[in-house]
Amino acid sequence: MAESVMTKMAYLFEEGNGTMKDLLGGKGAGLAEMTKLGFPVPPGFTITTEMCNEYRKLGKKFPAGLKEEIRKLMTALEEKMGKKFGDPDNALLVSVRSGAKFSMPGMMDTILNLGLNEETLQGLIKQTGNERFAYDANRRFIQMFSDVVLGLEKKKFEIMLEEKKRNLKIKEDQDVPAGTLKELIGEFKKFVLDSTGSPFPEDPYEQLYLAIEAVFKSWDNPRAVVYRNKENISHDLGTAVNVQVMVFGNMGDDCGTGVAFTRDASSGKKEIYGDFLMNAQGEDVVAGIRTPTPISRMKELHPEIYKQLEDIAKKLETHFKDLQDLEFTIERGKLYMLQTRSAKRTAIAAVKVAVDLVKEGLITKEDAVSRVTPDQIDQLLHPYFLQKDKEEFVQKGNLLAKGTPASPGAAAGIVVFEARDAIEQASQGNNVILVRPETSPDDAQGMLVSKGILTSTGGPTSHAALVARGWGIPCVVGCEAMTIDPDKRLFISGGKHYYQGETLSIDGTTGEVFLGALPTESPNDLSAECKELLSWADEIKRLGVYANADNPRDAQKARNFGAQGIGLCRTEHMFMESDRLPIVQDMIMAAPEAVRLKAQVDRLNKLWVKADEKEKVRIKKDLEKFGKALDAPWKDYRAALDKLLPIQREDFRGILKAMEGLWTIIRLLDPPLHEFLPSFEDTLVEVTTLRLTKTDPEQLTKKEALLERLKAMREFNPMLGLRVCRLGIVYPEIYEMQVQAIFEAACELKKEGVDVKLEVMIPGVGHVNEMKFTRDAAKYIAEKVMNDKGIKIDYKIGTMVELPRACVAAGELAKYAQFFSFGTNDLTQTTYGYSRDDAAKSFIPVYVDKGILEHDPFLILDREGVGSLMKLAVEQGRKTNPDIEIGICGEHGGEPSSVEFCHFLGLNYVSCSPYRVPIARLSAAQAKLKEDKKAGSYENR
Amino acid sequence: MAESVMTKMAYLFEEGNGTMKDLLGGKGAGLAEMTKLGFPVPPGFTITTEMCNEYRKLGKKFPAGLKEEIRKLMTALEEKMGKKFGDPDNALLVSVRSGAKFSMPGMMDTILNLGLNEETLQGLIKQTGNERFAYDANRRFIQMFSDVVLGLEKKKFEIMLEEKKRNLKIKEDQDVPAGTLKELIGEFKKFVLDSTGSPFPEDPYEQLYLAIEAVFKSWDNPRAVVYRNKENISHDLGTAVNVQVMVFGNMGDDCGTGVAFTRDASSGKKEIYGDFLMNAQGEDVVAGIRTPTPISRMKELHPEIYKQLEDIAKKLETHFKDLQDLEFTIERGKLYMLQTRSAKRTAIAAVKVAVDLVKEGLITKEDAVSRVTPDQIDQLLHPYFLQKDKEEFVQKGNLLAKGTPASPGAAAGIVVFEARDAIEQASQGNNVILVRPETSPDDAQGMLVSKGILTSTGGPTSHAALVARGWGIPCVVGCEAMTIDPDKRLFISGGKHYYQGETLSIDGTTGEVFLGALPTESPNDLSAECKELLSWADEIKRLGVYANADNPRDAQKARNFGAQGIGLCRTEHMFMESDRLPIVQDMIMAAPEAVRLKAQVDRLNKLWVKADEKEKVRIKKDLEKFGKALDAPWKDYRAALDKLLPIQREDFRGILKAMEGLWTIIRLLDPPLHEFLPSFEDTLVEVTTLRLTKTDPEQLTKKEALLERLKAMREFNPMLGLRVCRLGIVYPEIYEMQVQAIFEAACELKKEGVDVKLEVMIPGVGHVNEMKFTRDAAKYIAEKVMNDKGIKIDYKIGTMVELPRACVAAGELAKYAQFFSFGTNDLTQTTYGYSRDDAAKSFIPVYVDKGILEHDPFLILDREGVGSLMKLAVEQGRKTNPDIEIGICGEHGGEPSSVEFCHFLGLNYVSCSPYRVPIARLSAAQAKLKEDKKAGSYENR
Repeated sequence: MAESVMTKMAYLFEEGNGTMKDLLGGKGAGLAEMTKLGFPVPPGFTITTEMCNEYRKLGKKFPAGLKEEIRKLMTALEEKMGKKFGDPDNALLVSVRSGAKFSMPGMMDTILNLGLNEETLQGLIKQTGNERFAYDANRRFIQMFSDVVLGLEKKKFEIMLEEKKRNLKIKEDQDVPAGTLKELIGEFKKFVLDSTGSPFPEDPYEQLYLAIEAVFKSWDNPRAVVYRNKENISHDLGTAVNVQVMVFGNMGDDCGTGVAFTRDASSGKKEIYGDFLMNAQGEDVVAGIRTPTPISRMKELHPEIYKQLEDIAKKLETHFKDLQDLEFTIERGKLYMLQTRSAKRTAIAAVKVAVDLVKEGLITKEDAVSRVTPDQIDQLLHPYFLQKDKEEFVQKGNLLAKGTPASPGAAAGIVVFEARDAIEQASQGNNVILVRPETSPDDAQGMLVSKGILTSTGGPTSHAALVARGWGIPCVVGCEAMTIDPDKRLFISGGKHYYQGETLSIDGTTGEVFLGALPTESPNDLSAECKELLSWADEIKRLGVYANADNPRDAQKARNFGAQGIGLCRTEHMFMESDRLPIVQDMIMAAPEAVRLKAQVDRLNKLWVKADEKEKVRIKKDLEKFGKALDAPWKDYRAALDKLLPIQREDFRGILKAMEGLWTIIRLLDPPLHEFLPSFEDTLVEVTTLRLTKTDPEQLTKKEALLERLKAMREFNPMLGLRVCRLGIVYPEIYEMQVQAIFEAACELKKEGVDVKLEVMIPGVGHVNEMKFTRDAAKYIAEKVMNDKGIKIDYKIGTMVELPRACVAAGELAKYAQFFSFGTNDLTQTTYGYSRDDAAKSFIPVYVDKGILEHDPFLILDREGVGSLMKLAVEQGRKTNPDIEIGICGEHGGEPSSVEFCHFLGLNYVSCSPYRVPIARLSAAQAKLKEDKKAGSYENR
Repeated sequence: MAESVMTKMAYLFEEGNGTMKDLLGGKGAGLAEMTKLGFPVPPGFTITTEMCNEYRKLGKKFPAGLKEEIRKLMTALEEKMGKKFGDPDNALLVSVRSGAKFSMPGMMDTILNLGLNEETLQGLIKQTGNERFAYDANRRFIQMFSDVVLGLEKKKFEIMLEEKKRNLKIKEDQDVPAGTLKELIGEFKKFVLDSTGSPFPEDPYEQLYLAIEAVFKSWDNPRAVVYRNKENISHDLGTAVNVQVMVFGNMGDDCGTGVAFTRDASSGKKEIYGDFLMNAQGEDVVAGIRTPTPISRMKELHPEIYKQLEDIAKKLETHFKDLQDLEFTIERGKLYMLQTRSAKRTAIAAVKVAVDLVKEGLITKEDAVSRVTPDQIDQLLHPYFLQKDKEEFVQKGNLLAKGTPASPGAAAGIVVFEARDAIEQASQGNNVILVRPETSPDDAQGMLVSKGILTSTGGPTSHAALVARGWGIPCVVGCEAMTIDPDKRLFISGGKHYYQGETLSIDGTTGEVFLGALPTESPNDLSAECKELLSWADEIKRLGVYANADNPRDAQKARNFGAQGIGLCRTEHMFMESDRLPIVQDMIMAAPEAVRLKAQVDRLNKLWVKADEKEKVRIKKDLEKFGKALDAPWKDYRAALDKLLPIQREDFRGILKAMEGLWTIIRLLDPPLHEFLPSFEDTLVEVTTLRLTKTDPEQLTKKEALLERLKAMREFNPMLGLRVCRLGIVYPEIYEMQVQAIFEAACELKKEGVDVKLEVMIPGVGHVNEMKFTRDAAKYIAEKVMNDKGIKIDYKIGTMVELPRACVAAGELAKYAQFFSFGTNDLTQTTYGYSRDDAAKSFIPVYVDKGILEHDPFLILDREGVGSLMKLAVEQGRKTNPDIEIGICGEHGGEPSSVEFCHFLGLNYVSCSPYRVPIARLSAAQAKLKEDKKAGSYENR
């Protein structure tokens, strides 16, 4: 707003409207809107947020002219009410309330009955004929004013009141007689004088200005600042101040006060819900001094009032098109509205209300989709603890620790420290919480049967977190306050030892860990309303939503949750299963030697062609030597591959069948091979022990050989080592076996009439030659199998884009890749140079704490860094091949802000764990709505 | 060339010139140029390279009209010589030679005496009156023709000749009588008929066409293809064919043949150099059947011929402005030139000739700088083995293995397996070769005293390679054929065991490892000529050339080699030295706990400010608890830092003094802290052993504590872990200590009158907030020290750009960084996702072998991938801050092709190890010359 424009400093309620939240705050805009619509709102005015900012800018001074403006508006109120502010005979009293654009804790709340002093008090007594009411009003005013304006401790005043009550043997405030209240007013004022050195202000305008200043100042109080930081609310918004004529709920039994929701904010049920108290002021409800009555009883107790309320509630909801949170006061049988705003609500209510409002014709499907947050959908998908149960546990001292929430949901069970114990306990029907320093692929079976997983190390993308999220198992990681010793089957927390068999409850949504069993609430399935809402989201969204699923069970789950395909089927999880791991290990032990010698033989054969006689003699000798050496490892290598082929074929049959009619993207082997072998460390300890004890020379020899192989395969930085497509280039036979299994499975199914749609994904490509090599090899096998079987499968070959170099070379890659899938876990890792296994436990928390990073980039996609590279890849890839299909299958694919980014980037789909599919569907729709609204690109946001 | 243009198929020598190498090949262009200049060249013509390509395109068919064209030109030769091709009485004989643009092994060489058949042979006898000469000429022709055109084995013909000689008891070919030669011709022809089923072609034109076809075909023979692949020569160039009238060096004692260099191609000395043989044909010189005479003796033996040669050589050199490699024939006392071309030469000669030619006014300084290759400068800088010595060792079977050449130069010495043994042996005056599976910073002292380093693992950027290259120590890494067991003090190679004390010779330029001691040749210093040449390079180049140096000795070396500053002074090497390592370890053991607790205390102090009374009680209790816990580790941490401060100050004093007047870029601590601690593995074995043996409970407790700390600090991928600026953010006290030491040293020196120019470099920045945080902290300390000392130092603060995210965010970083230095080792690592410690030994060799990658990207900068990101960073950085100084300090900074790329990228400087500074200076100048020549950007190359 240009400085030259003379802006309005304050608005009478009738001058504003509901859209003016920036200027009038939420409360002020609501009051203005209600006034405009003719609802019974006590007259008042709102001082704008700009005045607050101006006041702060001037170093806590009233902006020039503001006091005059306030007096002018007070005069308007006086005229309206036929009363005068400070008039001893007929005094106007007002309330002063803060009201920022967003409501936030820590802001000054309310001062009631402002304008009372010794003179006007007498007038009020005369006017109402109710001495006790008047003294009580004055007593309350002094108490509130002293607390929020003068900064005197509320408690001190309460103690004085309590003393009086004790002396009089009175329990309830409302039973304190007028005389005592009168005494109390004197004592309060004396206390103010003693504490502040000044008398309690008697001039009503002085009271008013001080109260307004207190609201202005409360914008900068620490709790409000912390809250705004946390919620990403700008510190420049400022708060408005509402000055409103008092109506009294405590003038007698035809008076009262209350709060109400136009529908049940907990279940979403369509009925007025709330509490009221007759002959009371609002603070009595809040303070909990008296027990309020449910609104459901108002109908019989006060039918006329209920009728007014019902009528107003309906009109308000119709007008605001949303569930409203109301404050009202009844003065002498007449209902006055003091506030209306959109109500906070539970996830269940959010969904039900949104869907119901559509059915009632109040809002559109698009509105409904906008109003439910992805977090709410998330809550609906996981078991949870009730807040009250948790609070009870906290009070009992049962909150043991807080770690990083890694997979949402709540679980309680008995503690085990080893995967095998988990399996054993679970088989006996026990609910199990697997507690480990960290997990590894070896633990997979044990994790699968656990109700919850808890680790002391690792971050939200650690192995434990990834697996847990994939399977929808609640998980807390990086719980550093706990020292976990699986060998001794114990963990230490707060200096105490806890052993296997102990009961724990973990909340994967918040990271809390409780001692003892909390009852869990289970959502079972998506509600019908939720399904309906998501079907509307599907109509709106442009992004496809796929799921990451590695087996038929997960694939089915994904379909149930509305996935349109599988964006990532990881074949390594198949390798991990216990029946095949030994075969995989045989393959790995034989492969390096087999491949090394084969390359040698190939090289010699090539040399042979152009060698002269003399050289040929030498080459022949070498060929014999190497050929002989090659024989055994090659046979072992092939034998293992031949055993894996039919197993893999069955794996792929299962998943392709479950996904009939939908595209399934199968990724070829990805992790470094040593992940399938026993740990180097354990083997080192075993060998050292065997060497010293000399008990089992045979075993020693065997273990030494294993140790040698493990040593040879060891990498300083396995994430950057021999993995992804590098495996398929160094050991082409492994990828060939996988592709053969995939296409044999597909052909069999097709023959059986199943509609198979297949995409083969090459991981970790960085150079176009990697793409070409692996694509050509896969294509060759695919065509061969299809030719042999005489069957044609609809298939594509593409790549993951998960290295910065892939982004840079995307234009080249798109010559050979029919689709791209961003692997943003790895891409984040290499773009930042952060190991996702290490960073979360070491420096990322420090970074977030010191404000270096806003979020953990493994949780929320880094738009500036990683996002720029993705943008480049999309542009370059589409330039080469405008039809290329581009998606994302990293963990970010189910995170709302990241899904939005993917939408604006123009991706074709996101893929995430089945449990996040509904969230992604909603987020994708919301991104589209945002786009429609702004009609701008994501760069201009 | 458009198809409609009628192109010339072949050129008489007088029709061409020296610039037509594309069309006429190198040899043809040289012959044409000499003919044009009036040198005595036997007449002839050259069939163009286009005809070769046409022939290949047509599927090995003569292009239409070519045969007619050849006949036409042959007629021209006939007229010129007054002879006729195939004329029984006066036959014209010709030679046929290949001649591509670049000479390459595997191409068809020469057929002499073509045109001889039964009839023309008789004519030749009559004409020359020399029956033996004529039969011998025919015998040679059949032999050569059968070999290269008919594909019959040369050996078979030699066996027949040898049999005749044995029967006649004759040793030398020239003693074989005419009659025997005549018999041999008959037997040769019979053998041809028997072997091929066709008689030897008698028609001279048939002979000629077949010979020409053989040349065409030889373009595609495997050796030539392999060579072109290796040398990056296009397969589309094709070869020309030279048909030239025969002159005979074997017609009597006034005839002869020889090869000569216009200067000594080995030393560069200005005198004609070469060999000749009287009464011989060229092949006799090549075959080594007779021992040729040095040209230096020609002066006295054949003064008139020498005069002709001297005269021609001088003229040719003046004309071609370069050292020439000549072939000549003397027929009846007259010298004929058969070839001239720029001579291959040694590194020493290349430099000397280039400098001399400038002084002789023949070429410009720019020409001289262009003509010496960076590889030649490299050769001049390192000790080397003589080729003949190596060949002798190979024949004796002493070549043990071949690894990856990692640091050039040659060294011989006795084998040791541990750094401490190296130090001990070296102190006794022994030359030592340190042989280890891999090296670590612990080995630094031992590496420094070794003459050579050999490892069985690791690639060209492994620790061993980096350190060795930095210190100019010859090094071979990744020598996988050797199994090295330092514990047993032995290595195994080819199944044999070799123990400590064995003698090895290693060639770090080629990767060869020999058993036994080879004599090394040492270049000592750059020659005066080399220094002069490089001073010219400095005049030309635009890039600054800095050196990477970590101590005063290296800094001095860098200055001697012409470095203009230090681009990278690594402070971690200072931490490694034995007197300070224990202090560093104390610091590391205390730091995590100290910093963790301090953060806790800080957090509590912050909470205090906004807490209410009740909270304050709790906070106070916590503060006491944590404050107490913090006390001990914090004291330990600070004590270690305080001990390091004066030591580091001395380090920086030394280096800044050595670099007086030049900019010195000091990088703050970079590697993960656990690199300074004992190895996890060793400690694990120790603990396991101590647990089992129960011999030393006290030691066990100590080692267990160490193991715990090592475990806590362990990272899955340390390259992506808590290192670089992350250290300076998590442990700000370490960077603060370093900055304080740097500025205290600088202030002291300035006070003493030393001109200090200082740049502080923050490693591994990826996010602008990292830059801001570390820059602000460093600046604060710097200003504080300067204020305290009352001294102003000229300084900058900048960052390494070594992460993809830094490239993407360069525009932001440039707001706070005054300079960028590309760390292309790490940038390559993260851009590709290749661990440089692992990739070189595992998959990069396979990738290069399979053609996935052209080079190891850690050796030669990947322009397409890493280069694109660098380009982006330069553009974005300069957009924000046009004056930002941008350089490179990765290993690529001394690699010629990468230096060229940096030039075209517009960097300000490159920085490399001192030993590579001369190479970088030359490469930088050559890049500038290339730019001037093409006047285009690097993208258009």
